[in-house]
Parts: sequence; structure tokens; C-alpha cells
Amino acid sequence: MKATYIKEFKEIQPNNPILIEGLPGLGLVGKISMRYLIKQLKAQKFAYLYSPHFPYFVLVNKKGSVRLLRGAFYFVKNTEGANDLILFTGDSQSQTIEGQYEIADSMLAFAKKHNVETIATIGGYRMETQGKPKVIVAGTNQAILKKALAAGGMISPEGSPIVGTAGLILGLARFKKIDALCLLGETRGYLPDPLAARSVVEVLKGMFNFPLDLAGIDEEISKADKMVVRLQKIEATRAEQAEETRKEEDKKTTYIS
Amino acid sequence: MKATYIKEFKEIQPNNPILIEGLPGLGLVGKISMRYLIKQLKAQKFAYLYSPHFPYFVLVNKKGSVRLLRGAFYFVKNTEGANDLILFTGDSQSQTIEGQYEIADSMLAFAKKHNVETIATIGGYRMETQGKPKVIVAGTNQAILKKALAAGGMISPEGSPIVGTAGLILGLARFKKIDALCLLGETRGYLPDPLAARSVVEVLKGMFNFPLDLAGIDEEISKADKMVVRLQKIEATRAEQAEETRKEEDKKTTYIS
Amino acid sequence: MKATYIKEFKEIQPNNPILIEGLPGLGLVGKISMRYLIKQLKAQKFAYLYSPHFPYFVLVNKKGSVRLLRGAFYFVKNTEGANDLILFTGDSQSQTIEGQYEIADSMLAFAKKHNVETIATIGGYRMETQGKPKVIVAGTNQAILKKALAAGGMISPEGSPIVGTAGLILGLARFKKIDALCLLGETRGYLPDPLAARSVVEVLKGMFNFPLDLAGIDEEISKADKMVVRLQKIEATRAEQAEETRKEEDKKTTYIS
Amino acid sequence: MKATYIKEFKEIQPNNPILIEGLPGLGLVGKISMRYLIKQLKAQKFAYLYSPHFPYFVLVNKKGSVRLLRGAFYFVKNTEGANDLILFTGDSQSQTIEGQYEIADSMLAFAKKHNVETIATIGGYRMETQGKPKVIVAGTNQAILKKALAAGGMISPEGSPIVGTAGLILGLARFKKIDALCLLGETRGYLPDPLAARSVVEVLKGMFNFPLDLAGIDEEISKADKMVVRLQKIEATRAEQAEETRKEEDKKTTYIS
Repeated sequence: MKATYIKEFKEIQPNNPILIEGLPGLGLVGKISMRYLIKQLKAQKFAYLYSPHFPYFVLVNKKGSVRLLRGAFYFVKNTEGANDLILFTGDSQSQTIEGQYEIADSMLAFAKKHNVETIATIGGYRMETQGKPKVIVAGTNQAILKKALAAGGMISPEGSPIVGTAGLILGLARFKKIDALCLLGETRGYLPDPLAARSVVEVLKGMFNFPLDLAGIDEEISKADKMVVRLQKIEATRAEQAEETRKEEDKKTTYIS
Repeated sequence: MKATYIKEFKEIQPNNPILIEGLPGLGLVGKISMRYLIKQLKAQKFAYLYSPHFPYFVLVNKKGSVRLLRGAFYFVKNTEGANDLILFTGDSQSQTIEGQYEIADSMLAFAKKHNVETIATIGGYRMETQGKPKVIVAGTNQAILKKALAAGGMISPEGSPIVGTAGLILGLARFKKIDALCLLGETRGYLPDPLAARSVVEVLKGMFNFPLDLAGIDEEISKADKMVVRLQKIEATRAEQAEETRKEEDKKTTYIS
Repeated sequence: MKATYIKEFKEIQPNNPILIEGLPGLGLVGKISMRYLIKQLKAQKFAYLYSPHFPYFVLVNKKGSVRLLRGAFYFVKNTEGANDLILFTGDSQSQTIEGQYEIADSMLAFAKKHNVETIATIGGYRMETQGKPKVIVAGTNQAILKKALAAGGMISPEGSPIVGTAGLILGLARFKKIDALCLLGETRGYLPDPLAARSVVEVLKGMFNFPLDLAGIDEEISKADKMVVRLQKIEATRAEQAEETRKEEDKKTTYIS
Repeated sequence: MKATYIKEFKEIQPNNPILIEGLPGLGLVGKISMRYLIKQLKAQKFAYLYSPHFPYFVLVNKKGSVRLLRGAFYFVKNTEGANDLILFTGDSQSQTIEGQYEIADSMLAFAKKHNVETIATIGGYRMETQGKPKVIVAGTNQAILKKALAAGGMISPEGSPIVGTAGLILGLARFKKIDALCLLGETRGYLPDPLAARSVVEVLKGMFNFPLDLAGIDEEISKADKMVVRLQKIEATRAEQAEETRKEEDKKTTYIS
């Protein structure tokens, strides 16, 4: 595998689709939010994204079956709002800088191909939160920001940069004439944070009007623990790699006779 | 040399060949297993694999002769079972992530070219073993897993990810419609482990029915020490590079005026 | 975004243009000098430079609007001297070696396209300065060096190498038959240094005869503090990345089973 | 500059040329040997090698003039022996693994183009030497090794791998059907070692019969100090980069929101 690619295995007929993206990151806010939306909206998987920039180990399940790390796209026909939904989540973010750009480019090209005009990305915002986590928003134009503020989001007074896929997609979306919005749930960051995810999902519902029943969200989100345990195992494997291979990294430069 | 390439110097006529792969890694389980199979089955070398992703020093033998690090393919006409064998081993794994994918891709394309339908990869599984090392198996489909379990393998209850070439080949094999199985011999890992290699070879024999006489395997494997010493010298050179060149690695980024 | 590219959005008609370049670096001498020139000469922005080699986070302003890091080109029609000016500055230098060459190549091709025959680059020279900072100069030919010395520059007795974009542009300019000069303001380096920037601007004025009123330069340069605070925020984000992700860097090499 | 390239500015008519290569490395043995040969044989410069894999700072001389780091090829018409000489040395080795292969490939292609059939590479061999340094030799075939042994070289009993350009050229030369020999002068390594260089030059003279007067070699080699000081300045700049930019290196991986 030389480069990131997306493999569609089911055809979709999206109507004015909005793409919502959330990958594992700070507080797993993006991942938990997406898992909740995918389950609640009964989204149908229709494509996989593979990349040589994901960590290069394979996952093994309890039956001994093996697969590469990947991302997946899900489709929701929205019976209530004007926009269908394409939901994207995955096992990991890119491990390299070039991969960050390559994966973001792939996703934007895929969005363009399916006539997506608006993208929402989800992540965590490092903060020592008290009480209900706020949702910090940033966007590519004032109209979409207004909508987000009306739905409960707020603009960060400090203007902190946004690092990673959640921000990069916004920076690049402009060049494809796609509007984009980033929603960051306040989180301490070192533990999975379902409360931050809940705040984000509430703002999304307010903005895009999915048929989403928020009652029972707490129960659903706690069931996300099983998924979180698996993500933590991926994280532990990566950390173990770091310990064992720190020396290997140092050997990548020239040692001359 | 810009990219990994395979140079065939002898033509083979394989019949339903199975490819078995084992590179230096944890406990040298893969390397020791392959050396044993190559010797016992009187396998004939027929191709080399070169890559700019192997460590970039050259080996010097006692006669002062020099060669690059490389992998080698061997062929065995199997008079007893249905499948001929292509055996692959080498001096080292890839030193870079891109190289891991590039080398795995090269090997899979080579396998496809020779009509290989099944690949077995060998590695080590980090465990504080007592007594006879077990063989943990993972695979790309249930049929091949069943066969492995019947031959003495077992599925890991923890579902640990598999890192490196042994796992990556399985993750990528699916896309080429090749079945693949990974056999990991339990090993402490920091010493060469012929016992773990023996366990793996026993399972392979049970699965694929080579004309392999396991009597004398212990003696053969202890003779592997000489090969192991040479691999440890390669390892020591790489470690020395690390010590000397850690600073070099730090110089790879920009220092601005 | 696969590679560095320059996007021109306004057409210019330059007459014998000189290109002056200053990016954030030691003491922010280059950045502060350029900001002063752009403001004083009422330079008009006409192109952006984007690169996947800039740090890959996006900036968020007080209104929640998002953009990628970038460089920008400004044009000044020079009513007094023989040469129009093209001024270039940006948010950051390249974060990779390949990016250093790629961005320098892009800028030189852009200069060639607009018939630039002379380039001046600005940076900092690490020195424990006393009193008015001197300006160390280096160049691609003796004629331009003479002009710089006549305007107050001096040649470094130690012959220290010049690292980063400011020096690389000179090294590569020769191959495009463009004359180039590097002006390094002496600076301690760890704080933004408007005094070093002032010394550089004085030498530039002496050489190229812009309609630049140096009275009030001190006041203007202190107003640069606001811009500097934002650059320090970029720097802090990058440093935070370093702390958080040092382990990630170590995971980029192979960890084998 | 996207890739390594060689720029010839004078045409040569070589007769059965031998290429001798020596870059800065352990004990500067390769560099000092080449400088001596170039001076003594009155070799004429005829080509430069540039690479984006050399350290990316520019050198500034006492007159303020600037240049990129580079390698240079020199030609010697040999009036006494059967072979003309092409001599190669430079400011630095490659700073990246890919660059090591790219530069070695460039040099071998250049050698092939000029009908070179034999290459000798020079480096240092880490040893706590007593008295006159020995010369360890390795080669691509027994004939050339015999010649080297007859001229005073010796084969290393330990069979240590050879790291860097000096070894890589041998590993790759085979594929271009060029014979190659590596001469490593025993050296402690951390100081420039003219005695090790002298031992190597003596073996080369014995093998290839240049018109080289070894009387006065000691005086010539001590004059090499000035060149060595400049190389040590390059080394110090690189080391300073390491100290300042170690954090930068860590920022090259993803930090996610």
C-alpha cells in the first residue's frame, strides 16, 4: 500500500449530505461522539479508508481474525432534516505529518465526489472543566459559526490553534469550496470523556436537526466503554512500540566509517 | 537503489506453492524456524530481495568480501504434500514504516506472480513462558485458523495486535485474495529462542505435511548458534549506530537564523 | 496538499523588482523587519504561499475563523528608486529539511517568473550584543557585498555558516542566476529583537533607497508587539506539541514481533 | 533542488579511470587522504555534486561569499600507471538514509558514464591503535583484495560491518559490474587522524602506482590542519543545530485535538 485510499463497497444516493468526522484524539471526544451518532441513527457502513500512515500493526479479534487499522464511512438517510449524513470515524489518526495532509485530502476529495457542501469535525479542547463541558467552535465562515453559536457553541476567547485532522480539514476545506465547522468539547484529555461527547452531540443536533433522541444518551455512552477499552489497547501497543523502539528511531541517520 | 526489488536468478515451476516467511525479530523465532526448514528440506535459493529500507551498512565476511543486507527466497519441491514451498528469510526487517509496507507489498506481488494462495508468517509472542512454548495463531479466515488449531496452535485470549512484517503481510494479503496465517511462538524475546522455533515448526508440519524429520531438531537448532552470533553482530552494529548517531537524528530538523 | 504552491490573486506589473524575504527566526529579526517595511511602504498583498511543510495546525482568530499557516507576497511600486519591491513574510519556517528546499525553490521560481534579479534575505545572527546591533552580511557576489558594506553592513570575521531559509535562498539563487544578499541582525535570539530589525532596515534603506521614513520606527516597531504575541502563541503550540508527542516520534520505527 | 545531481563544467578524456572516494567521516581519514592526493597529483576539478541530503546550511568565507555544501570530482592524467584517476571528496556525508543511497547511486552512475571499472573508497576503522595504523580492506572480489593485501592492507578478523558511503558504494557497485575496494585506516576516531590517512595513501600507491612522492607527506598532512579546522566548524554548526532543534524533531509527529 503506497498511499491512502478509500474503498466503497456499497453505493449511496446522498441528498445534500453533511459529512461529520470524529477520530480518536483528546478525551476520545470525536470517537465517542461518532460511535453514538452511528448507533443512534442506525448508520450503514458503505466505505473504508486505508492508509500506510496509520500505525502499521494489525488488530486481532477474539476469533483470531486479523485486520489493518482503518477508517469507515457510514450513511444515514435523514427523514427529518434537509440533509442526509455521511459519518466518518476510525481506529487512529495519522502517525506522520505527510499522512495528516494525505488523509485529509482523501476525505475532502471523497466529500466533493458525494456533493458534500458542509463538513463538521469533532475533537477535544484541553481545559480543566467544571460541570457541563462547553463546546468551542471554529469555522470557515460566519454563517456556519452563527448557527453553531445559536445551538450552544462558543468561540474561544484565547484563539488557540487547532492541531490534527479536526483542524486541518477546516484549513483545506476552503480550497475545495466546502464549508467546515470544528466542534471541540472541553475535556481534561487523559481519560475518555463521554460528557464532552454529549455536549458536542447536543450542539450538532441543534444545528442539523437529526432524528436523535438524547434521552438514554448517558446509558449509551457508558456502553461505549467496551469500544474505549479496545482503543486503549491500540494506544498501549503504540506506547509499547515507543519504549522498545526509541533506539531504532535514532538509527535512522547516518553513522559513518 | 530507489525502491525494494526482487531479483530472481533461477526459474522455478511451483505447484500450488505455499509461502512461509520468517525474518529476524522477537526471540529470532522467525529466523531460526526458517533456517531449520531451509536446511532440513534442502531448499534451493532462487531469488534475492534488496531494499533501501534495510539497515544501510554492508556485511564483510572472513575473506573480506562485501555484500548488502538482503532477503532470500528458497524453493522446495514437495514430494509428499499437495503444495510446493517457497521459503523466505533475511538479515533484517525494514528500518522504516514506509519500508515495512513496501517490502510486504513486494513479497505479496511476488507471491501472486508465483500463484501462491496461502502464506504463513512466523514471529515471536512476548510471554514469560514456562515449559514448552505455545504457538499463538491469527489468520485471515476461519478455515485456515481451524487447521492451525488442529495442528496445535491456539488463539490468544487477549487479542494483542501483531506488529511488524509478520502481521502486516496478513493485513495486506486480504487485498490480493491470498489466505494468510501468522504463527507466533511464545518467547521471552531478548535471547534467541530455539524452543519457540521448534514449537512453530511442529505446528507447520502438522498443517502442511512437509517431509520433515523432527528427530534431531534440537541438535540442528543448536547449530543455529553460529548464524545467531552473526545476527547479533548485525544487531550490535545497529545499536552502536544508535548511540553514536542519536545526535545526528536531532539535526534533521530546521535550525533557523 | 501534496506540495508547496503559490497562489496569486492579484496581478502585478513589477519594474526591475527586488525581492526581500524575512520569516520568523532568531530574534524574529526577519519577521519584524518585514512587518515594518510592509506597513511603512503600504505594500499590497497579491499572493499566498502554502506548504505541507509548515506546522500543520490551523490558526483561529477572535471571531472563530480558521486558516492554515502560510506565507504572503506584497508589492510596492517604488516611486523614488529604480526598483519596485516584492516583500515576503509568513507565519513560520519549514518544519522539515525537504520543505526548506521545496519552499526556497518555490520562492526562487516565483522570483524568476517576475523577473527579480536581486533577492535580500533577513535573519538573526546569534551574538551577545552591546549597544546598537550590527548587521552581518553575506552574498553571492562582490558587487552586492560592496553595496551592503557601504550601507553599513559588515562581513563576519568568523565565517559562520548560515542555517535556514535566509541562507538556503542564497545558496540556490546562484543556479537561477539571481544575485542574493543575506542581512543578519546581531541578536541574543531568545526574545523578539526590534533593535536588530531596525539596524537591518537602515542598511536596506541605504542600499535600495526606498521612500522610508525612519523617524517613528521605534514607535512602529513596539506596536509590532501584538503581532509578536501571536507568533509566540504559534511557537508555544509547537513547543507543546513537542512535549506531548515526543513519544509519538519514537513510534515511527518498526517494532517487530 | 529536489534530488542529488552532478554538474560537470569541464570535459575530461579519461583512460581506464579508477575512482577514489573519501568523505568526512571517522578520524577524517577519507577527507585527509583525498586532500593529500588531490594536492600532490595536481588534480583538476571538473564537476560538482549537489544534494538536498547534505546539511542545509550555506558556508560563508572570509570575503562574505556564500555557497551550498557539495562534493567535487577531480581528474588526474596518470603518466606512470595504466589508469587515470578520478578523485572525489566533499564537505559532508548525507544526513539521511535515503540520501546515502541517492548519493551513492549518483556517484556510481557517474563512474559508469566515465567507464570507471574500479572504485576505491576510504574511511576510518574504529580501533585503539598503537604505533603505525593498519589498513583494513574489504572488496567485491578476491583479485582486488589480493592486490590490496600485497600492498600492505589486511582483512579484519572480526568481520565488522562497514557503515556509510564508503561501504554502501561497495554494496551497490556489484550491480553496476564495477569492482570496488574499501580501505579503512585504523583510528581512535574523535580527532582528525593524518597518520591513518598516511597508511591508506601508502597502500593506494602500492596498488595503483601513482606518481606520488611520499617524502614530505607528514609536512603536507599537517598543513591539512587548516582544512580540518573548517570541517570542524561545519561539525560544530551541525552539533549546535542538534542542541537547539532537538525539540523541533519531536514536533514532527501529530498532536491531536
